[in-house]
Amino acid sequence: MNLAERTLSSEYVYQGRMINLRVDQVELPDGKSAQREIVEHPGAVAVVALTNNQELIMVRQYRKPIDKVILEIPAGKLNRGEDPEICAQRELLEETGYQAGQLSLIARYYTTPGFSDEVMYLYLARKLIELKQSPDEDEFIEMTRVPLATAQQMVLTGEIQDAKTIIGILALNKLLT
Amino acid sequence: MNLAERTLSSEYVYQGRMINLRVDQVELPDGKSAQREIVEHPGAVAVVALTNNQELIMVRQYRKPIDKVILEIPAGKLNRGEDPEICAQRELLEETGYQAGQLSLIARYYTTPGFSDEVMYLYLARKLIELKQSPDEDEFIEMTRVPLATAQQMVLTGEIQDAKTIIGILALNKLLT
Repeated sequence: MNLAERTLSSEYVYQGRMINLRVDQVELPDGKSAQREIVEHPGAVAVVALTNNQELIMVRQYRKPIDKVILEIPAGKLNRGEDPEICAQRELLEETGYQAGQLSLIARYYTTPGFSDEVMYLYLARKLIELKQSPDEDEFIEMTRVPLATAQQMVLTGEIQDAKTIIGILALNKLLT
Repeated sequence: MNLAERTLSSEYVYQGRMINLRVDQVELPDGKSAQREIVEHPGAVAVVALTNNQELIMVRQYRKPIDKVILEIPAGKLNRGEDPEICAQRELLEETGYQAGQLSLIARYYTTPGFSDEVMYLYLARKLIELKQSPDEDEFIEMTRVPLATAQQMVLTGEIQDAKTIIGILALNKLLT
């Protein structure tokens, strides 16, 4: 069965600083039409940064959409045309003050393919060197070191509530065993 | 440090069928102001449905935002006020034709707290009973059974590219070991 949808029309209802919102009219496989609401996102990186002492470098950050401070791995949006690996190094340094001597891509995935095109590049950072934290002007971030075993437990208990952080920690599990 | 941001003003730029887009002006912890673009989402469920033969019930679906057919676990949006467990049973039945004799919540998390408030409820479904598939009018979905070991391999190789599906399969790993 051909599952694809053909675009009949496409309209931007918002073009913003971080995201755009597009509404497409599409033709379904059976010839009927439907509307699709699509958030365009530049893509992002996230970094599982593991010290030689088996600690994860994590950040506490207020997230306006959910009105909560949550514990996450360092992450950030791609600048236009930016290499994800360069972005990962930049965000890690800005948010935590650490530089990775070794960086490897562990996953590339769509965060929410039902309503957005965001691609997430997830990296493992090792051989960490501590430099100086320098967050963006509008970012207020607390760096914290969490023993890996504690972080794994916090995924299981539901204390860690952020998708990329859950994937990072579960994938690390898999990579280390 | 108090990391929270105070809302100065809030404006809907779009109120749609599936999502709303809101732009908030906020006061940062240092007193400066910033803009936050927020996608309001009703929340969603996803279901890791495992047969007695250690097969996952999965779906192939075209996703307009990424213009691709991808392999996912069954999932769907919450109706207003809907109990996530009821929604999980409904979506599993609609998309795959299976009913779960046993359903347990394995994770609750934010998919993209940087730009949306979407909450995902992830369930494990066991004791499956095969009934009849009945997708929504504008959904074209192919059900497929994938051996669990194959699905786990497809996460590692990057063939599975959907965040909730990756979390479901990695979490199942953890639950079964």
